[in-house]
Amino acid sequence: MTKTDQVLAALDAGLDSALARWQAFLRIPSISANPAHGEDCARAAAWAAARLTEAGFTAEIRPTRGLPCVVARNRAPEGAPRLLYYGHYDVQPPDPLELWASPPFEPVLVEGPRGPRMVARGAVDDKGQVMLWLEAFRAWHETAGHIPAQITVVLEGEEEVGSPSLEPFIAANAAEFAADAAVISDTNMWDIDTPALATRLRGVIYIQIDLKGPTRDLHSGLFGGSALNPINALTAILGRLHDAEGRVQIPGFYDGIVPPSAEELAQWRAIGFDEAAFLGAIGLAHPAGEAGFSALERLWARPTADLNGIWGGYQGPGSKTVIAAEAHAKLTCRLVPGQDPKRILAGIKQWVRDQLHTIPGGADAKLSFSGEGGGPGTEIALTNPLFTPARAALRAEYGRDPLLIGMGGSIPVVEMFKRVLGLDSLMLGFGLDDDQIHSPNEKFELRCFKHGMRSHARFLGALG
Amino acid sequence: MTKTDQVLAALDAGLDSALARWQAFLRIPSISANPAHGEDCARAAAWAAARLTEAGFTAEIRPTRGLPCVVARNRAPEGAPRLLYYGHYDVQPPDPLELWASPPFEPVLVEGPRGPRMVARGAVDDKGQVMLWLEAFRAWHETAGHIPAQITVVLEGEEEVGSPSLEPFIAANAAEFAADAAVISDTNMWDIDTPALATRLRGVIYIQIDLKGPTRDLHSGLFGGSALNPINALTAILGRLHDAEGRVQIPGFYDGIVPPSAEELAQWRAIGFDEAAFLGAIGLAHPAGEAGFSALERLWARPTADLNGIWGGYQGPGSKTVIAAEAHAKLTCRLVPGQDPKRILAGIKQWVRDQLHTIPGGADAKLSFSGEGGGPGTEIALTNPLFTPARAALRAEYGRDPLLIGMGGSIPVVEMFKRVLGLDSLMLGFGLDDDQIHSPNEKFELRCFKHGMRSHARFLGALG
Repeated sequence: MTKTDQVLAALDAGLDSALARWQAFLRIPSISANPAHGEDCARAAAWAAARLTEAGFTAEIRPTRGLPCVVARNRAPEGAPRLLYYGHYDVQPPDPLELWASPPFEPVLVEGPRGPRMVARGAVDDKGQVMLWLEAFRAWHETAGHIPAQITVVLEGEEEVGSPSLEPFIAANAAEFAADAAVISDTNMWDIDTPALATRLRGVIYIQIDLKGPTRDLHSGLFGGSALNPINALTAILGRLHDAEGRVQIPGFYDGIVPPSAEELAQWRAIGFDEAAFLGAIGLAHPAGEAGFSALERLWARPTADLNGIWGGYQGPGSKTVIAAEAHAKLTCRLVPGQDPKRILAGIKQWVRDQLHTIPGGADAKLSFSGEGGGPGTEIALTNPLFTPARAALRAEYGRDPLLIGMGGSIPVVEMFKRVLGLDSLMLGFGLDDDQIHSPNEKFELRCFKHGMRSHARFLGALG
Repeated sequence: MTKTDQVLAALDAGLDSALARWQAFLRIPSISANPAHGEDCARAAAWAAARLTEAGFTAEIRPTRGLPCVVARNRAPEGAPRLLYYGHYDVQPPDPLELWASPPFEPVLVEGPRGPRMVARGAVDDKGQVMLWLEAFRAWHETAGHIPAQITVVLEGEEEVGSPSLEPFIAANAAEFAADAAVISDTNMWDIDTPALATRLRGVIYIQIDLKGPTRDLHSGLFGGSALNPINALTAILGRLHDAEGRVQIPGFYDGIVPPSAEELAQWRAIGFDEAAFLGAIGLAHPAGEAGFSALERLWARPTADLNGIWGGYQGPGSKTVIAAEAHAKLTCRLVPGQDPKRILAGIKQWVRDQLHTIPGGADAKLSFSGEGGGPGTEIALTNPLFTPARAALRAEYGRDPLLIGMGGSIPVVEMFKRVLGLDSLMLGFGLDDDQIHSPNEKFELRCFKHGMRSHARFLGALG
């Protein structure tokens, strides 16, 4: 029996205690977007640091200019490969609460069509995925007395609000984070039987648009026809965001895009992506994106502009004949490699201003922007030597080669690690597309959890 | 000393008790839009019925298919003119609460630039204005032993939600409400020194638009570019509501409009309306309405389309990269004489459907409409003989002739009384444009209150 086999047996035998630890982590409502949960975020960091200590790490809670980071380091055999493990202990807000079948911070293991699944906010994103390598570390430490890699862990608490403090923290302490590659578990498998390694990630930018008109709410009879209506105006502006072909109308939006290579496109075609099933699972039949591209191109290689929230005026029962004093919207754009986030944010602001001036009375509106942030899309070099043990580990665990895919979601840390530390990232992700991350009833399949822990343990074994 | 003079003296002497009664009425949060306030609405009706009883009326609380009506009748001298007094005891919702300087249902008399003013939800609309004639009735009853008119009172509780039950109730009991004219106090003076009689009222229609897309909230990275975003779609549709000249784009919207006569237009020009001051008072400088019309035409003789509320997705702090499952908006249109509300409501629905089909993926959206209602604009005949004592009473109280004006707001009951009962309405209103009805810090000037009670008392005296 190899050391790796012993570690895998220990993981299988210790599953119940791993589940208990996972649930304890999920019970902490570490919602970074809401300052009222600052204490909970600190508790989540301390919890993770304690688990790392149990796995033989020296762990510290390190202040940043925002929520703290957990930084931990193990003692490794001489000459072992150096890996930077990254994850986040914060979670998305759970609202709308009324759509949850069980309270979001009371994790429950329920039977689903593919066996048991854990349901809770953060079940997969990213507490569940962080647990995979925490448990692999613990099993190596307890079974073999060491982990066959020189590991630095950085766990941040602001991923769900755009990681405003992580880059300054990493840049100021770059020497501590030197490594041969980064390892990140925050992505999905291709399907429950097929692992995947991501080679292309979309970036994201976000911005809130606030439009104020009259100094107070007005009666629509006494003022309608003369007074600027901020909801009308904001709707008129943002209604022009796309043309009839689904193309974003912000000038320069598509500048510099690096199209996928012919080889990538060929591989994506070979995947045989079932768009009808993909859309059918969410109750849709017609793709809503940009005309002239395949489904995977639209998801992995084309940028988007989505309004994530809009509000203003009366939202209660019945009618209220009011002209509201203000209106608001939240916008995010997914970006692809080649697009410059700063130029696009500037372009959005200029475009909104320009549109406003075409609206009768728009000159009176007070327009402001807030909460800007984000990062570019990224390509990941598959030539890094640490990709070989990762592919081998996944092949051994699943009996098939991992697919090399793009990702529609954004993991800005991948781009940042490349830019600031010069590191490629191994995206060892075990989520599924239907995990409902950022939505009510977020879940993680127990089957994915078990194979995920084992894949991480195998990967570490393959390094030794 | 004439009887009228004695009544006016009694009103002046009894001001403090009248203020106490007014405040008691305002303390009842009779918000018709919110079913949780049904008990409060019943309390407000009972309160008003008790005051009418004290003024010599036989008063009843009458059930309707919605909130109850108060119906009351006095014993009048033989051959006295027959008047139908209408008002409403319900009020608008008070939100946003944080913008009130004092709690909306704790009325306070505060010093303003034009003397004391009552601040509360309903201070003027319509509890304050109803108090004017309740107090005039009381003073005539207590001073002269009778009121010199055969009066029927109908006080409804659903005006702020579009009076869905009033017309069936009036139509089913039309004989009870036979009269020579209706009297309504729910409108404004020209300014604090100049009374006005309205001869033209805009109508209003309202409708809520609900758009549902995917079966659940989605991650904008995993689905953005393929899944229909209901906020994007609703914004794209409603953003097309006006063209760059401020003209409403719904087909047939302007059909049948009766333009004001040359004489009306000449009178409106002579008023010398100060649009800069009108807009300046609400922090605006540029008119936002339809191009090619004067300010008073836009307010009194042109229709509008205003979004009164819009909502969907994440509205909290920070960002949330979600594609929301649904989006909603509330729309009202002010109508002018000649426009057909039913045809326009049907036109809006067809137009929204047509727009939806131009949007990529729009075929998947579930579109629904709710809360439809409203009524047409109205012209009022100035040939009714009861206009003469009304004009005389206002002239006597204010020392100047009342202006004959249009009204931008909608009082659908005026159109309904004309259509169902054949009655012209005298609009004896004492509000001011800056009373902030439907807004935080609604107020009624004490000076308007005093002269309003006295004007009503004089009008009754002029009938005798």
